[in-house]
Amino acid sequence: MKFELTKEYLDELRERIAHDDDRGAYKMIEDLHPADIAEIYDELNIEEARFLHIMLSGEKAADVLIELEQDDRERFLEVLPGDVIAKQFIDKLDSDDAADVLGELSDEKREEVLTYVENLEQAGDIVDLLNYDENSAGGLMAKELIAVNENWNITTCLKEMRRQAADINEIYYVYVIDDAQKLKGTLSLKKLLLTPSTAKIKDIMNQDVISVKTETPSEEVANIMDKYDLVALPVIDPLGRLVGRITIDDVVDVIREEAGKDYQLVSGITENVEASDNAFQLTRARIPWLFIGLLGGILGAVVIGVYEEDLGIYPEMAFFIPLIAAMGGNVGVQSSSIIVQSLAYRSLGVEGIGKKLLKELAVASINGLILSAIIFTYNFFFTESFALTLTVSTALFGVIIFASIFGTFVPLLLEKFKIDPALATGPFITTVNDIMGLFIYLMIGRTFYAMF
Amino acid sequence: MKFELTKEYLDELRERIAHDDDRGAYKMIEDLHPADIAEIYDELNIEEARFLHIMLSGEKAADVLIELEQDDRERFLEVLPGDVIAKQFIDKLDSDDAADVLGELSDEKREEVLTYVENLEQAGDIVDLLNYDENSAGGLMAKELIAVNENWNITTCLKEMRRQAADINEIYYVYVIDDAQKLKGTLSLKKLLLTPSTAKIKDIMNQDVISVKTETPSEEVANIMDKYDLVALPVIDPLGRLVGRITIDDVVDVIREEAGKDYQLVSGITENVEASDNAFQLTRARIPWLFIGLLGGILGAVVIGVYEEDLGIYPEMAFFIPLIAAMGGNVGVQSSSIIVQSLAYRSLGVEGIGKKLLKELAVASINGLILSAIIFTYNFFFTESFALTLTVSTALFGVIIFASIFGTFVPLLLEKFKIDPALATGPFITTVNDIMGLFIYLMIGRTFYAMF
Repeated sequence: MKFELTKEYLDELRERIAHDDDRGAYKMIEDLHPADIAEIYDELNIEEARFLHIMLSGEKAADVLIELEQDDRERFLEVLPGDVIAKQFIDKLDSDDAADVLGELSDEKREEVLTYVENLEQAGDIVDLLNYDENSAGGLMAKELIAVNENWNITTCLKEMRRQAADINEIYYVYVIDDAQKLKGTLSLKKLLLTPSTAKIKDIMNQDVISVKTETPSEEVANIMDKYDLVALPVIDPLGRLVGRITIDDVVDVIREEAGKDYQLVSGITENVEASDNAFQLTRARIPWLFIGLLGGILGAVVIGVYEEDLGIYPEMAFFIPLIAAMGGNVGVQSSSIIVQSLAYRSLGVEGIGKKLLKELAVASINGLILSAIIFTYNFFFTESFALTLTVSTALFGVIIFASIFGTFVPLLLEKFKIDPALATGPFITTVNDIMGLFIYLMIGRTFYAMF
Repeated sequence: MKFELTKEYLDELRERIAHDDDRGAYKMIEDLHPADIAEIYDELNIEEARFLHIMLSGEKAADVLIELEQDDRERFLEVLPGDVIAKQFIDKLDSDDAADVLGELSDEKREEVLTYVENLEQAGDIVDLLNYDENSAGGLMAKELIAVNENWNITTCLKEMRRQAADINEIYYVYVIDDAQKLKGTLSLKKLLLTPSTAKIKDIMNQDVISVKTETPSEEVANIMDKYDLVALPVIDPLGRLVGRITIDDVVDVIREEAGKDYQLVSGITENVEASDNAFQLTRARIPWLFIGLLGGILGAVVIGVYEEDLGIYPEMAFFIPLIAAMGGNVGVQSSSIIVQSLAYRSLGVEGIGKKLLKELAVASINGLILSAIIFTYNFFFTESFALTLTVSTALFGVIIFASIFGTFVPLLLEKFKIDPALATGPFITTVNDIMGLFIYLMIGRTFYAMF
């Protein structure tokens, strides 16, 4: 019932493929869900996967394709001729999935495939969908839906639904439109089951329908469906006409992707990689931020270089360089990530930016006072230099204040300019705070050593 | 249609509440969705929220309660007598929501409330649900579902569905059971609409039904629903009997929570906080990891202290302390977060732990060689000491290798011992790598300065 991919299973499957045992290999996968077969492909090389794929029936082969990771799918489609892609896949997929697949092909290949699509209505729907930004409601929606006229009664409605339903995998809602195709309401299947068949649709439909426009960004679509607990969401055009519907499974993918992207940025990874990717992909995703970190480190070396003389005289000042740099980095990441998460989930509240910074200042002051007091006590007892004791605790307080305000302000600023605020988390914020922290520390040190 | 909470709206609402203008205040919220009203409560103080709440009708008041943040809800219920909670909320909620609310109350209060629940079937369902771990399928599921017997025909089935449907908000699937209550299949509403009414359920149901056991962990439930694109998932007991169903909206919350938790850990935050929380909550969530970072910094100071003499003679060695520490931290966070994400999404692949570490070693070597070459070139031209040039580049390479392997190994180890691997991201990994990096750097420095 539920499939778990193991090394043993995979070894046996590979063995059968290697021995050209197509019947034996097919037996192992025939009862599996397309999502499980896609997971198996992910572990096979392209020839092995193709060996299995040609044995699958049309609908299932198309469904497996949709479940593949994007780069695996692209490699898969690259070698297939346009008419095969059209007949074996595009004709059998829902319009939104078909548009996603076509959107990944080159311009020429896409046009070639489209000329071979037999169902002209499907071809038209796909061309429509390809026009929308893939990160908008238009890019997420499918054209397949059940729409009934508000003036019909339930019997007509059921008859029409039977006709329309043939194309659609699952029905969650029936949408109600007027003669001008404008969305007027929804009808739950429960209502249809419970109401006498002469009732007019208009009188039993739910008029409080939540919808989005084609240009609504995906993130907002996800937030709306999550907030209002919806499994399907109708999409309307600028004239209010019903043009498609988005289902929750597509939105779950959006939520996971968004969360994954933010997580990657805070961890300093620039591409969507997994532990099972190869060493080259993993390196490519990691080196950009490391390079920036390295530049930051060199800048840090330059800053310390300015104070070389002081360090020659008071080498103990070097002891606390890592502490100051690390604390600046930690505090900065905390501040920026709280803001980034609140922006992502629209839970920032209604208070203005000034009030937010003031609150952050309060938090930073409390944290700063506590931690500075601890390090003051430690140094008071374990360090001989009072100047150092004073320098470290004062600098730590200063760094915490600076890093908090900077970490709060930068993501808010980026958001204002419509740049992804998550860019201001992770290595960026640590690097800037490292350098600023060093500067604050050494400057304060020079002053205090001169005074005491 | 879609509501956006603004400062102006809130000011006006507060104004009306302050002037005891209950009619005016009610007018502002009466057409809003419960989720929107909950969002408004979040910005009001408890008295203002209660002023609005007593004007809401039963069903709506209960729905708003469910949409509130947990701590707001607890404060809300604290002051209400048990019979009011039972009649106004518990009787009107779905069994899963009712159990969640009751689960948040103290033991005595819960028992008191349960004695007042009028619907005895509901009370029984809730008591059943309270027995399950809240992070398991049993804790997520609701008891309300439509189940039909496999031996019925469609007409009987529809009649029975009409009877059962009265209690249920939405129907996504009809579950098919045998005489012993065992789950045998599902029936899509589409099938019900398209099939002649004399057909037997047994012959038209889908037998490939994916289900989970009551003890399946929430994370796995989320992964299954996501992977197989399900909107509802039946839950069975050890005997295979159908005991409940989980809907996708509850799972979306699980996915967001899990992603949020991992994000917090990598950012060094110990509690679920939002930018709109107060300064005290924000401080409490942030100081624990800062404290650990501070301890790490003190340990770092001790490590450098051991090499104080060397630093007195070669103060330029201090220049690159921040670079080495920062790079160790960055690389460690990258490695650990890739593993943590892959564990969370079950995309770790089938290769063993040894192979993973070997691959990580390859990635670290490539990154290490490139970055060491860059810093070698920089120091060769801009630094006078060849010993320093050699020390920094060698130490950087060593730190990158150590941090990568450590960052990969620790989360895998934690997972083995059933501890949340995400603990090994963020400040923990940076702190350890800071200290180890310093140690490697200063040790190599002493060796090379002695040689050149």
